[in-house]
Amino acid sequence: MRAFFYPAAVAVFGVSEEPRNLARNIIHNCRSMGFEGDLYPVGKKPGEVQGMPILTDPEDLPRGVDLAVVLVPAPRVPEVFDACGRKGIRHAVVSTGGFREYEGAESRVEREVLSVASRHGIRFIGPNCIGVISTGSGLCTPFNPLDTGRFQKGPVGVISQSGGVTTQAAYTFSDEHVGFSNIISAGNKLDIDEIDLLSFLLQDEETEQVHLYLESIERGRDFLRLVREAPKPVVLLKANVGRTASAVARSHTAALFNDDRVVQAAVRQVGVVRVETIHDMTVAAKALTLPALRGNRLAAVSFSGGFSVILADACEREGFVCPPLPRDLVRKIEGYRRGGVIRMSNPMDLGDVHDPMGVVFALEACLGLDSIDGMALSMIYDEQMSRLFGGRGASKEQILSFAAGLSERFEKPVALSFFTEKRHVEDFKALGKYPVFNDAVESVRALRMLRDYWVRRGEGSAGAQGGM
Amino acid sequence: MRAFFYPAAVAVFGVSEEPRNLARNIIHNCRSMGFEGDLYPVGKKPGEVQGMPILTDPEDLPRGVDLAVVLVPAPRVPEVFDACGRKGIRHAVVSTGGFREYEGAESRVEREVLSVASRHGIRFIGPNCIGVISTGSGLCTPFNPLDTGRFQKGPVGVISQSGGVTTQAAYTFSDEHVGFSNIISAGNKLDIDEIDLLSFLLQDEETEQVHLYLESIERGRDFLRLVREAPKPVVLLKANVGRTASAVARSHTAALFNDDRVVQAAVRQVGVVRVETIHDMTVAAKALTLPALRGNRLAAVSFSGGFSVILADACEREGFVCPPLPRDLVRKIEGYRRGGVIRMSNPMDLGDVHDPMGVVFALEACLGLDSIDGMALSMIYDEQMSRLFGGRGASKEQILSFAAGLSERFEKPVALSFFTEKRHVEDFKALGKYPVFNDAVESVRALRMLRDYWVRRGEGSAGAQGGM
Repeated sequence: MRAFFYPAAVAVFGVSEEPRNLARNIIHNCRSMGFEGDLYPVGKKPGEVQGMPILTDPEDLPRGVDLAVVLVPAPRVPEVFDACGRKGIRHAVVSTGGFREYEGAESRVEREVLSVASRHGIRFIGPNCIGVISTGSGLCTPFNPLDTGRFQKGPVGVISQSGGVTTQAAYTFSDEHVGFSNIISAGNKLDIDEIDLLSFLLQDEETEQVHLYLESIERGRDFLRLVREAPKPVVLLKANVGRTASAVARSHTAALFNDDRVVQAAVRQVGVVRVETIHDMTVAAKALTLPALRGNRLAAVSFSGGFSVILADACEREGFVCPPLPRDLVRKIEGYRRGGVIRMSNPMDLGDVHDPMGVVFALEACLGLDSIDGMALSMIYDEQMSRLFGGRGASKEQILSFAAGLSERFEKPVALSFFTEKRHVEDFKALGKYPVFNDAVESVRALRMLRDYWVRRGEGSAGAQGGM
Repeated sequence: MRAFFYPAAVAVFGVSEEPRNLARNIIHNCRSMGFEGDLYPVGKKPGEVQGMPILTDPEDLPRGVDLAVVLVPAPRVPEVFDACGRKGIRHAVVSTGGFREYEGAESRVEREVLSVASRHGIRFIGPNCIGVISTGSGLCTPFNPLDTGRFQKGPVGVISQSGGVTTQAAYTFSDEHVGFSNIISAGNKLDIDEIDLLSFLLQDEETEQVHLYLESIERGRDFLRLVREAPKPVVLLKANVGRTASAVARSHTAALFNDDRVVQAAVRQVGVVRVETIHDMTVAAKALTLPALRGNRLAAVSFSGGFSVILADACEREGFVCPPLPRDLVRKIEGYRRGGVIRMSNPMDLGDVHDPMGVVFALEACLGLDSIDGMALSMIYDEQMSRLFGGRGASKEQILSFAAGLSERFEKPVALSFFTEKRHVEDFKALGKYPVFNDAVESVRALRMLRDYWVRRGEGSAGAQGGM
């Protein structure tokens, strides 16, 4: 399977010099993304693409090509596979559409493709897909021109049953500064299916969590088994849930079987984290980089009364409890107040604590309590207020390092958000030193996703299931 | 009430040259925001702030000052009010804290403030607040230094029971390019309360919709009456909903009474749009600039199979129906397909229609149907694909103008989103020509908010209540 993601050399079938030729974009995407392996354009007419000659006879391909990307008309795919087989190419991405989703299940060309593939031992992704985007190798097989310079490397592998979602996921994970390792558009899954891809990503050393966009789960039992035994978190956006979606899903990916019971079983039994939007995939991805959330009891801390109240409502909505703090601790924290106006509780409003030592004491003391499993921390940030964490103002890096140190030392998650301008939030995210959520409510949703993973995997503490 | 927002001249009490003096920031914020009225710093010691002399005797104030912003210690507020009264100042923002929330309900200084105010006919906002930010006049009374250059003028008035939420709303509405007219931090509401402020904003010509962040609604009946008769939409983020929030809300705004039945009654009876996050206030604000959504039947259109399925699930989740389209219309749209691969339905995947005329025909025909009340439109955008809407590629302006024209002509809302990079979405939003939502799921949520307003106000068509 590695050849699908980290090939040494790639042949692209279907390239021509014509301006509207789509296969050219595959060469261009790979080059602009920094793919360092060899690339061989293959086409019917001689010519040149990106300074490379177009080979008109596949026999001229050198040995050592381990992946073919195929974008020729459907009836010609078998002969391309035959040529690949003769040159020892054992892996292919078949981008071409017009198979099952066009001709129905009894597609003759499909049977032919399978037969040639099996004769030569070729495994393939697709057809009817855009293939693989890999930040590890720079491989980028989509045939639509992509802004590859914006893609960020990161721990998330994505498998998608939609080309549109594939590119959107690449952009969204990058825009949120989460990044990705490998994103795969699975297409018609005639040979390689999401179970094969999931198995690979669960082993891939560049991938620390796997996110799936699926419109159908056909091998439900295999899916459950795989996720149960997975050493890495699995996040699932299962679309095609309701009746409204079923017609459009059928014409999109021929997704007939739509049993939400498999999804619910996965969520309940094996700790799949379920999300409903692509953005929430990034929220889950950030959450899952935090230490384990082994229970249901949070400290919710803000520097504004309003955001403390908003946090409190969000905690309750997501099924968390905010246990009261020990009286002597409350008294100590209250000793740091300036006005002495605000009574301390959990959720806690530290807006009256202007002493950085007091803030540090309060956060450490709360997170250190045995009765607290994690923290939602809504920080104020503006250039002036940043002084709070240092004599002359702490930098954004210092604030993130403090949060990172806090969660590491106590081995409990601190879900961090800021109330400030969006540009500051973007700056914090871009630093990539510690996950930052877009707002206080999102940070609590993130903790819920983290809990979905840890508690449902049976690693939460006893008695921590309240409210779930 | 106008003097609170558009004063001709303002006196700021409590100013000094000391670096840590907070009242100085009020002068600074007003100046940097372009407030063109006269400003008069008043303080105990002579000096200069922003090139203006600090008046040590309020008697030296000229006639014509119509607003005082007061940030002196609580016990000194009555004497400041007395001075104001003598100079004919009849409106005040009292920023000072340390009243009821500090001393309890039987605050003596509070009674004194009320008595002096009533003697001189002074109306005041606060105490314990940050007052008013007005993009119409440039008035900006918060005593924390703000990045006023980023504030954008817009149609939304906000009343907030939290200072933190006040500044965050100013930033969030600006960051989302919605903008705001007047934002008011109401504080302890000793004199002017949210009902007074709401009444004003419902008449204010700069304000087209009013958004509220409230932790308690004390005059529930007045609130319901006011909203029922309101000529403008009202959006409510009612926090302090659950038990978890009640303790922190009490110490924050003394919000004891927390009857969610009033809120639910408002939502059901009078068409208040309820939201749960500050970001969703901006979603509601964008939605409410669209034409009326008079029913529950949507056309959901995308240019990707995946996003069509995601739209379909979102529609069902928010209680919408996507009725089937007439057969002859479906056949006509199918005539524009290139591959002829995708069967048309509602939700509709136009990914196979590469003819701009076909896209325009399909969108116009769908929106024009009597069986369709509105549209969720998930557009693809990348620099190459933008060619779709013109010979050589339509500009972002042209795409927005097309959507605006569409919704205007049919007097039905088109909730527009794009699947593309975030920077393009930000560019679209910044143009401000037509509301753009952050993603397809958000666009459907926006339509739900619009429906909350129109259908519940009794202006939806009969039989349009299905699924609600």
